[in-house]
Amino acid sequence: MISNRPIIIYDTTLRDGAQREGLALSLSDKLHIAHQLDVLGVPFIEGGWPGANPKDVQFFWRLQETPLQQAQLVAFCSTRRPHRRAAEDSMLQAILAAGTHWVTIFGKSWDLHVTEGLKTELAENLAMIQDTVSYLISQGRQVIYDAEHWFDGYKENPDYALQTLKAAWDAGAKWLVLCDTNGGTLPHEVSQTIAAIYAAYPELRTDPEAPQLGIHTHNDGELAVANAIAAVQAGVTMVQGTINGYGERCGNANLCSVIPNLQLKLGYDCLGSEQLQQLSRTSRMISELANLAPDDHAPFVGRSAFAHKGGIHVSAVARNPKTYEHLDPSAIGNERRIVISDQSGLSNVLAKARTFGIELDPKDGACRQILQQLKELESAGYQFEAAEASFELLMRSALGQRPTQFTLKGFQVTCDIWQAIAQACGSNALATIKVNVNGEDLLEVAEGNGPVSALDAALRKALVRFYPEIGDFHLTDYKVRILDSGSGTQARTRVLVESSNGEDHWTTVGVSTNIIDASYQAVVEGIEYGLLRDRQLFGSEQPLNALY
Amino acid sequence: MISNRPIIIYDTTLRDGAQREGLALSLSDKLHIAHQLDVLGVPFIEGGWPGANPKDVQFFWRLQETPLQQAQLVAFCSTRRPHRRAAEDSMLQAILAAGTHWVTIFGKSWDLHVTEGLKTELAENLAMIQDTVSYLISQGRQVIYDAEHWFDGYKENPDYALQTLKAAWDAGAKWLVLCDTNGGTLPHEVSQTIAAIYAAYPELRTDPEAPQLGIHTHNDGELAVANAIAAVQAGVTMVQGTINGYGERCGNANLCSVIPNLQLKLGYDCLGSEQLQQLSRTSRMISELANLAPDDHAPFVGRSAFAHKGGIHVSAVARNPKTYEHLDPSAIGNERRIVISDQSGLSNVLAKARTFGIELDPKDGACRQILQQLKELESAGYQFEAAEASFELLMRSALGQRPTQFTLKGFQVTCDIWQAIAQACGSNALATIKVNVNGEDLLEVAEGNGPVSALDAALRKALVRFYPEIGDFHLTDYKVRILDSGSGTQARTRVLVESSNGEDHWTTVGVSTNIIDASYQAVVEGIEYGLLRDRQLFGSEQPLNALY
Repeated sequence: MISNRPIIIYDTTLRDGAQREGLALSLSDKLHIAHQLDVLGVPFIEGGWPGANPKDVQFFWRLQETPLQQAQLVAFCSTRRPHRRAAEDSMLQAILAAGTHWVTIFGKSWDLHVTEGLKTELAENLAMIQDTVSYLISQGRQVIYDAEHWFDGYKENPDYALQTLKAAWDAGAKWLVLCDTNGGTLPHEVSQTIAAIYAAYPELRTDPEAPQLGIHTHNDGELAVANAIAAVQAGVTMVQGTINGYGERCGNANLCSVIPNLQLKLGYDCLGSEQLQQLSRTSRMISELANLAPDDHAPFVGRSAFAHKGGIHVSAVARNPKTYEHLDPSAIGNERRIVISDQSGLSNVLAKARTFGIELDPKDGACRQILQQLKELESAGYQFEAAEASFELLMRSALGQRPTQFTLKGFQVTCDIWQAIAQACGSNALATIKVNVNGEDLLEVAEGNGPVSALDAALRKALVRFYPEIGDFHLTDYKVRILDSGSGTQARTRVLVESSNGEDHWTTVGVSTNIIDASYQAVVEGIEYGLLRDRQLFGSEQPLNALY
Repeated sequence: MISNRPIIIYDTTLRDGAQREGLALSLSDKLHIAHQLDVLGVPFIEGGWPGANPKDVQFFWRLQETPLQQAQLVAFCSTRRPHRRAAEDSMLQAILAAGTHWVTIFGKSWDLHVTEGLKTELAENLAMIQDTVSYLISQGRQVIYDAEHWFDGYKENPDYALQTLKAAWDAGAKWLVLCDTNGGTLPHEVSQTIAAIYAAYPELRTDPEAPQLGIHTHNDGELAVANAIAAVQAGVTMVQGTINGYGERCGNANLCSVIPNLQLKLGYDCLGSEQLQQLSRTSRMISELANLAPDDHAPFVGRSAFAHKGGIHVSAVARNPKTYEHLDPSAIGNERRIVISDQSGLSNVLAKARTFGIELDPKDGACRQILQQLKELESAGYQFEAAEASFELLMRSALGQRPTQFTLKGFQVTCDIWQAIAQACGSNALATIKVNVNGEDLLEVAEGNGPVSALDAALRKALVRFYPEIGDFHLTDYKVRILDSGSGTQARTRVLVESSNGEDHWTTVGVSTNIIDASYQAVVEGIEYGLLRDRQLFGSEQPLNALY
């Protein structure tokens, strides 16, 4: 099943991906994403629909100032309106004004959409396709034709659906892209339908001047990736999709899964192997820009995609990665990760320490001590899977590599909801804190929108005189989970805090029946870790590694 | 491609699903989930591995007190250890002690795992499989055999992999389940490998006494659902998977997608059609219990799976749903949703009111007022799907059916972590509250393990003199979710509080940047709702309905 056939990747994150409910990209976000896709080596990047969205018009103009290095930028548009001349359709003028060499035109394949949606005649729809493609070619453009609702249309009226493809072909389109717009088609139907097209039009395979076929799938059946692969195996040469599978409803074909499946498993030629190593980074960067939490469990590129729990797995993977990994994570720029969990045995702790650059001796007392502490803390509700900075502090503490930078003497937090006070102060929480630094007691007070932000502010106010770099620290994420939630407000609370100094990020954990206390623990460890890191204060030459 | 062949669904959310990084289920969560899966109509529910996890042992015992109505509960275990007698293996004693009629045993199919993982001989592994299955059958159990790493093992050494299946078969296993443990297999490989098994052992198809084949896939290639479907099309009769696709690394085959694809698209017989309508509810309930945000974009069951944006889609869908929907959302208990539309809001409110026994007149001002408030509150982060008591209060308020029972004047919460104080008091939070009841100001103070339990105690202390039934109220659940978690400790917090009077339960919601304030809102509404309910104080004869 290995083939070296090139497959052309066509990214539509900026157009179809941006249809995802809750996703909003600024112009600057879109420019950043386009340049990262260019670095990734994607040959076609669909930038938007300039006729429908004024922001998209600006995007095409702004991108001319900092052109892409290798990718072709594509503008997207529908066929002309019924019973108009193409040259007089304002939408087509808008797509020409975008100034791209390549354009993608979508048209109707399904008779139902022609008569009920467009409310026009079947013959007129064929004319709309042919006219639009011809006109754009006459204006010096290369045309990709997206056949909307192709698979549903073919099921209902195969002859008409085939005629729509032929209309775009006769007019000179370079690719005919089969769209599963409603996302409900199954892989065997994709294979059979594409075989039927080649049977109806054998020239598609034999005539080098004929257009090539492409595929555009949606994930409503959780089959978008499988359908894209089935289409490639059936002969298509272009795959349209989005980074992280973003898109309307359940999303589009996820290029982060399509590309490694095609290239690493089936041997098709999509990206250069160094470009492919940009895939995980591209996925995370685009989720950051879209302000959507990255999916840790995403195939290939997720943070948990190559995570191993439990002693047996970990020791087997250490001996031979093939035992529990379907491919080498470095090929897509991801990495293996050993998860610290209550099933952790000694071998996990040793493997984890190694990722922090620490060689532990399993016979050493420190090693047993770490394991013992880990078990006690985990049974108290701590969890270090997502709080590697706290785990590193615990380990370095046992090894005598955690110098004291400040000592907490105590804190008090007051929340007032007396209306008069809250209105007068513009805040409703006040925190008082006492810490000792270098033998000196510091007492500070700060206010905030809530008790945790007040505490964080008070602590940083006290410490910044001694550690000015704290001025750059800030909290970037805050997660709360109630343990044994059945016990109501008496339940223990676990808090995860993510901190940053503007460059790196690290995560710490706290647990208590008192949510303020749990938050405080995590905030304090976050500051401590950041300081140790910036000052390289650990009692060894080892770098700090619980960063990402 | 329509078939009425029955396909047996085997759920492993409680065992393999619970391997998901970051997922932790309490015993009570596990019992709730098992009962919901039973309602859904899943015929096999794998409850856990009693030999490996003490919590799983308790689960099997506790479930005997409230048995499942229709599902078979299954205990999971590995084959016996090398060179031991099955009857002397403590793991097998633990699985027998679980007291289930059905057991699932997993064993090695891949020679590499036998020699490198188990460090034993290939022949001994065959003996381990055969002995273990025979022994469990001799103890009156029915056995399902999970062939771990089947597809990878078959690729490397097909003869040996086939021998492992035959060992389980000869010993009397009822199902041989082919596991893609590393999750990297492609659909065409699944089809070809299963065809090869039937070719090697034609009796599997012809002999009614022979075991049947099953499939267990993982999602490392984003192909778990496609692989399960390919296996069914190749002839297997059991699909193992998890609700929401939870599982290690990238997860298991998502039953919420597998089942509707098999049943609604391919015509296989999995669940009753009324049971299938429980699918969306089951998905959301299990994500709530796991405290994982539901995936709005999940195929079939996600909140956005049938969401339509923009005028053209919406009017086309209104005329003919088939134009933009791949199937009818009501078949799986989901619903069409029009994104940002007053009309849909109004009809939702009317429908919701009807479930509370309230007939609203859409022309009535109260109806518009509810809609307006709802929009404002939802855009501030409130969510009423899981907090129906708060929604009922809001509605009855607009209808003049919410008499004032007490008025909050204000509160103050103090959390002290001065070590001396905490040790002396045995508590670390103090709440002061002022409320007005029947014109009388009450000032009360109470302490607690945390700020929320202190607040709850102070409020009830103040009110119990007027409303003695408050003595029976208590909080039974408390959930916290951070909204816009990217904004650190400044983020808004949504709190859900479940209250009970010992008989009924009801849930209320609060939102604020201050977690104490959000908790307080939910606690106060919980008490108010309970009082109105017990005293039938609503200004109508309508019963209170937001109970369960």
